[in-house]
Amino acid sequence: MSSSAPQHPRPEGGHRLWSVDEHLADVLGAVRPLEPIELQLLDAQGCVLVEDVTVPVALPPFDNSSMDGYAVRTADVQGASEEFPAVLTVVGDVAAGSGELPTVGPGEAARIMTGAPLPPGAEAVVPVEWTDGGTGGGAAAGMTPASAAPEQAGGEVRVHRAAEARAHVRARGSDVQAGDLALAAGTVLGPPQIALLAAIGRGTVRVRPRPRVVVLSTGSELVQPGEPLTAGAIYDSNSFALAAAARDAGAIAYRVGAVADDADTLRSTIEDQLIRADLLVTTGGVSVGAYDVVKEALSSVGSGMPSASAGSGEDDTEVDATRIDFRKLAMQPGKPQGFGTIGPDHTPLLALPGNPVSSYVSFELFVRPAIRALMGLPESQVRRPSVRAVLKADKALGSPAGRRQFLRGAYDAESGTVSPVGGSGSHLIAALAHADSLMVVPEDVTSVEPGTELEVVLLG
Amino acid sequence: MSSSAPQHPRPEGGHRLWSVDEHLADVLGAVRPLEPIELQLLDAQGCVLVEDVTVPVALPPFDNSSMDGYAVRTADVQGASEEFPAVLTVVGDVAAGSGELPTVGPGEAARIMTGAPLPPGAEAVVPVEWTDGGTGGGAAAGMTPASAAPEQAGGEVRVHRAAEARAHVRARGSDVQAGDLALAAGTVLGPPQIALLAAIGRGTVRVRPRPRVVVLSTGSELVQPGEPLTAGAIYDSNSFALAAAARDAGAIAYRVGAVADDADTLRSTIEDQLIRADLLVTTGGVSVGAYDVVKEALSSVGSGMPSASAGSGEDDTEVDATRIDFRKLAMQPGKPQGFGTIGPDHTPLLALPGNPVSSYVSFELFVRPAIRALMGLPESQVRRPSVRAVLKADKALGSPAGRRQFLRGAYDAESGTVSPVGGSGSHLIAALAHADSLMVVPEDVTSVEPGTELEVVLLG
Repeated sequence: MSSSAPQHPRPEGGHRLWSVDEHLADVLGAVRPLEPIELQLLDAQGCVLVEDVTVPVALPPFDNSSMDGYAVRTADVQGASEEFPAVLTVVGDVAAGSGELPTVGPGEAARIMTGAPLPPGAEAVVPVEWTDGGTGGGAAAGMTPASAAPEQAGGEVRVHRAAEARAHVRARGSDVQAGDLALAAGTVLGPPQIALLAAIGRGTVRVRPRPRVVVLSTGSELVQPGEPLTAGAIYDSNSFALAAAARDAGAIAYRVGAVADDADTLRSTIEDQLIRADLLVTTGGVSVGAYDVVKEALSSVGSGMPSASAGSGEDDTEVDATRIDFRKLAMQPGKPQGFGTIGPDHTPLLALPGNPVSSYVSFELFVRPAIRALMGLPESQVRRPSVRAVLKADKALGSPAGRRQFLRGAYDAESGTVSPVGGSGSHLIAALAHADSLMVVPEDVTSVEPGTELEVVLLG
Repeated sequence: MSSSAPQHPRPEGGHRLWSVDEHLADVLGAVRPLEPIELQLLDAQGCVLVEDVTVPVALPPFDNSSMDGYAVRTADVQGASEEFPAVLTVVGDVAAGSGELPTVGPGEAARIMTGAPLPPGAEAVVPVEWTDGGTGGGAAAGMTPASAAPEQAGGEVRVHRAAEARAHVRARGSDVQAGDLALAAGTVLGPPQIALLAAIGRGTVRVRPRPRVVVLSTGSELVQPGEPLTAGAIYDSNSFALAAAARDAGAIAYRVGAVADDADTLRSTIEDQLIRADLLVTTGGVSVGAYDVVKEALSSVGSGMPSASAGSGEDDTEVDATRIDFRKLAMQPGKPQGFGTIGPDHTPLLALPGNPVSSYVSFELFVRPAIRALMGLPESQVRRPSVRAVLKADKALGSPAGRRQFLRGAYDAESGTVSPVGGSGSHLIAALAHADSLMVVPEDVTSVEPGTELEVVLLG
């Protein structure tokens, strides 16, 4: 056999290959939404509501003015015009927030501000622009600040137009009624939902909290960015990239940084971090090498991973609660993957491969959905959206048989096309930084001609 | 004139109406991107890079293995097969991060791990699955951890297949070369860009920081959610909604909460907050009422708004640096608006109307673009995206002549339609919480029939 002879794919020594979909289903099958907690309104931004919130008091809670003007009785202004104005006695001001209200009797008016309660006796509001504003002159453009002209809360006002009953009055309950469903359980709380909750008086709400995701990269070759690069070393980018991506997915991310390739160090670091982790993500050390410490440290059940809690007799059953399954997936990049739960609380752990692009693609496919499932987000928001787009390229894309390939793409919504960015090497992190999507080449496709329609996962 | 007679629109007493576009142009014309600062990588997430970042060292920085296997000389494995393997002496391990490398001579191999430097003398890597893994048995599925079987870093390995020169070797600089442009100034830093910056060793980057936005609502009627509602009072929702919306736009938001309708209190609160504000947003108090304190406190130049810095003689020129212009806009909701700059640093201030829906729509139209302009985001990301959609409704939508109306909508991308949510009242905050878009009815349109195409601003 010459060195240029075709290399036939070999069976994987009895190890089955798992599909991307099988692995994702296993991850999502093992991840439960976090237990809800009561949070201050602004702390709940982006979280999922777990209670049906009903309206305790009507909104608005009282009849109030929609204009700055005068609260009047309609009979008093009937037929009023600029030439023949209705002249009314001003019995006082009703500002927004006024608790004690003047009563408006026949021939009387109260000066009233937007949002202020309609005082007893009044039936309608005439805008200040329909009056002389109490000045005795022509039509007013507005009111003088009360601090500068307190006398205008009294005296007389000339009204130039009639008003129907309820004119410029917002009725109690016209927005929502007490007992109405304000927001249903499952609603994601964005700014408008927070507005509604505040408006109905809710200072706190019951939501699923943001998951706390601990990210650590492994590899004795890893140097912190900004430090000098020694021989054989590279910079740790995974812990930065995945901490940023975890935040982007909605999590609170803790970047632990790089851990050297030593199983004991890794185990004690993970044990240490369990206390603040709803999900652990590691990169590197999951393949078939002699220094793949993540696999070494976590794959053996009863590997000595101690319980995070002080060990009582009962906790002994939890000592071996580490069940991380290491698999080969039928995908490129990202073939070696680990997943399982760890520690006394069965905290989910995803062990991703160490290549920067492999780990990033793996994060998108498996960790991001896990984070969003922990948040309790609706099914439609757990995965990235994907679209169909036509491949725009100079030449066909090659893809290995039996592997689902994920290639960096630039998607153009207007033309419905996607173009490759960079090559297929799993270390092409520069290309990733200029891509906005992942082109998906199915397992049974080995060549994609330009003009072919592809599935495209939008990373935006 | 009977009270049912049509009410003719009146001229606005000589006050011109400003269009939405004029007001936005004025806001964006006055807002400059914030001065850049050097930030730690993860602190720069979501920020705009202001420098062209070039690659200081090639990526990868050295030739390295893309597989776990053995580094060999190609002549030694030429013609190798399972039946007639090449038998090589293992001269040691090369793990990722190895600084000192063994030299691979004729008849020799070094066991090598993914990412480890190709040792001198070696020309190619054969994956461990193409060998017996030093066990003397059949094809290996992987390596035993070095901690468990240190002897496998020596002895002999049987290689079952030939390898071409450079096989499974990632060449130095194959991702990026020193001197390449990694990221151009103006790039928004998401997770993949942070990955690239870390990979090339950048611990910090020069970006425009997130703007600090101080949000305060005004109104003596406002009660904090969670507190009991007194007579004439309503809950403060604006400060919550706009703080959440400011964060959503990319800002660091400070919610000051509600300030009572007193001009001195308001002035001193604003003065107090200036120190931490890149942008101030107020709600309420901007109309024509007698208690519209925002207008009262800020509209008079030389109103006594003191400089925030301890007054030296030179600062006296800054004392009157408050220039807030109060306007009426040809829009609904959101007619009364204030905008200008305040204090010694000419901090931009937007004074929005107090109605919850008015303030929210005003935020979307004017404050959000201002925040994104302060961030230095590219033009295409300053405003919300908008689409054209066909109105799906039971009846025509009415809209006042001469006003651009913004109505709450539910957009359906699949059918390209938009349906109204709730009515047009500016207090319908419940409807806002169930909308995902704003339907735009132009100034010269007073009725929109079902089936008509409309501009729709997507709030997503």
